[in-house]
Amino acid sequence: MRNELVLIDVADHIATITLNRPDKGNALSAAMMDALEDRVAEVSANPDVRVVILAANGKIFSAGHDLEEMLEHEDRGWQQAHFDRCSRLMMAIRACPKPFVARVQGAAVAAGCQLVATCDLAYAVETAKFGINGINLGLFCSTPSVALSRAVQPKQALDLALTGRLILAPRAAEIGLINEAVPAERLDEVVQAAASAIAAKLPEAIGLGKSLFYRQTELEIADAYADAAVAMADNMDLSATREKIGGFVRKG
Amino acid sequence: MRNELVLIDVADHIATITLNRPDKGNALSAAMMDALEDRVAEVSANPDVRVVILAANGKIFSAGHDLEEMLEHEDRGWQQAHFDRCSRLMMAIRACPKPFVARVQGAAVAAGCQLVATCDLAYAVETAKFGINGINLGLFCSTPSVALSRAVQPKQALDLALTGRLILAPRAAEIGLINEAVPAERLDEVVQAAASAIAAKLPEAIGLGKSLFYRQTELEIADAYADAAVAMADNMDLSATREKIGGFVRKG
Amino acid sequence: MRNELVLIDVADHIATITLNRPDKGNALSAAMMDALEDRVAEVSANPDVRVVILAANGKIFSAGHDLEEMLEHEDRGWQQAHFDRCSRLMMAIRACPKPFVARVQGAAVAAGCQLVATCDLAYAVETAKFGINGINLGLFCSTPSVALSRAVQPKQALDLALTGRLILAPRAAEIGLINEAVPAERLDEVVQAAASAIAAKLPEAIGLGKSLFYRQTELEIADAYADAAVAMADNMDLSATREKIGGFVRKG
Repeated sequence: MRNELVLIDVADHIATITLNRPDKGNALSAAMMDALEDRVAEVSANPDVRVVILAANGKIFSAGHDLEEMLEHEDRGWQQAHFDRCSRLMMAIRACPKPFVARVQGAAVAAGCQLVATCDLAYAVETAKFGINGINLGLFCSTPSVALSRAVQPKQALDLALTGRLILAPRAAEIGLINEAVPAERLDEVVQAAASAIAAKLPEAIGLGKSLFYRQTELEIADAYADAAVAMADNMDLSATREKIGGFVRKG
Repeated sequence: MRNELVLIDVADHIATITLNRPDKGNALSAAMMDALEDRVAEVSANPDVRVVILAANGKIFSAGHDLEEMLEHEDRGWQQAHFDRCSRLMMAIRACPKPFVARVQGAAVAAGCQLVATCDLAYAVETAKFGINGINLGLFCSTPSVALSRAVQPKQALDLALTGRLILAPRAAEIGLINEAVPAERLDEVVQAAASAIAAKLPEAIGLGKSLFYRQTELEIADAYADAAVAMADNMDLSATREKIGGFVRKG
Repeated sequence: MRNELVLIDVADHIATITLNRPDKGNALSAAMMDALEDRVAEVSANPDVRVVILAANGKIFSAGHDLEEMLEHEDRGWQQAHFDRCSRLMMAIRACPKPFVARVQGAAVAAGCQLVATCDLAYAVETAKFGINGINLGLFCSTPSVALSRAVQPKQALDLALTGRLILAPRAAEIGLINEAVPAERLDEVVQAAASAIAAKLPEAIGLGKSLFYRQTELEIADAYADAAVAMADNMDLSATREKIGGFVRKG
């Protein structure tokens, strides 16, 4: 049952994780977030998976949290635990050594938009809308702001958070929230191209690189370089890396 | 007298604070900054105010510091106190629980550009010029760089700071310094739309959200999420928030 | 011999440092990085130099590290020292009180792209390609990511680092990696305009400003303002600054 909330499929080293609660706009209920976190753990542990496409069934990518469920709980402790669960999910995607590529076929708002911001890469159909619009119901998107403010510039994030406006995918691409907005008929092509490109790389190098990338953004630049130099030396110690470089050098 | 340097008007929960030293290009003399800081304190304390429009009278939004006044003081201690006063003003705008929307009708340079960068949102006429060009007079815009480097990307900020160039509003929008550049006849419309949208939200949620937004940008992401989860739980504890969400859920 | 790897020329307060290993795509061998670091020290120490153009001979700006040399060393300690050397070079450019303007006449990839990201300003021909594509050979561009992630938004940096794609100069300008992409026949004109503008400024103000700019980006905003206010007061203490401001005020 729980497994049906979030589907998974693996082929050619590419896992596709699909939000599967289309009748509820793929709202992130506690059960949905737990199911998604399980899937993230699954792909993290599966040595056959090199990259993950995060997709969704139905018209909406994700409408954010499940407001009906949230209303049922008057206990402040439940709410706190609920948002901690949500943050834990986002941090798990970030900590996963396999890159996540969001395939955004429809609206991604509030925590749904946060999911897109959290993925390493994101592609969307031109008609998809984005926003962190909880403020329209009196609930400022604080946790989504953590992801948005690290993905786009402050005035762009504040516009969405304070006015509750939605923007279309081409604007989302301009501000850096997604990598590209494309016509619906090209969405699979661009997502597959990115995923296939990553799947063709050396997984160990991708894993240490993704980890280093996020880790060093939180350090002062001198410490970041010290950390990155160790990562480079570790990477050069891999025999597969030496073989690839050797082949390239010999080809001249 | 002092009150005339910076005007204030409140209507429909929207305060308009207007720089009113047009004959001096709204230069930020010590008295002008003190008057503006008073107005920021006033709107912060006024429960009727939900959002603030920062406007200016005359052709120039603000030419920056009052160079004539600065020259009169040869005492290094005065200069230091002067720039500390300026920084205190900028931090007060950032700390104010009511969002600030800049209405930029003309040039905003040096500390004037810093003011725009400091506001949460900003709209400008297409012909408005922006820059942090103190370097043209041998005075690098160090304090404005603090705001600019947090609003736009480093190469864009350094271009302005090192070459002393001015850019037009459409370019300022591209680099994220302002939200939008519009024809003069549309300026009031877009500023009002943003301010009205914010004024229609739950003020407590806006206040806790703005505060959380800036606070978390200075934390590592794990700490930022911990902070934001508390803000979400606090926000969900507001009865007005529960009522709005309840109305939305029942409407289906 | 070593001096021939990286040329230097000084005219009109503008130093031009030229990568001169065109037959090897200006690959950054250990000797090349040492020679470049020497040139950075040279311009830092030369009071006649106010700004530095970083250029390259040949078709390629820089192809990054010298893979053949790297392969020759199986010792992890050598690799670590090699990347520490590279980071030291990048930090020296950043610490140099004279601004660096990259003149990018051809492809800048991996550590070559990092060099461009590290320069304070950068201009490129429209046909120049950029990327941090070491991952194509199993070597994630960890040290280049330090510079890229501080120059552009995360999804743009990750796209380059994870997929190994190259982008053209106009796209590099859009994402903030360079200041402008121009036709080949205009490259010298725009580079000279930026360098000449900086050379015409007060060198002491440029030096303290560049230093403050990078320093404050690593501080919390309150500390950044405290630091910048001291820089402003120091700058106002320069008699040359007072003279320039005085001349401007009197002209009215």
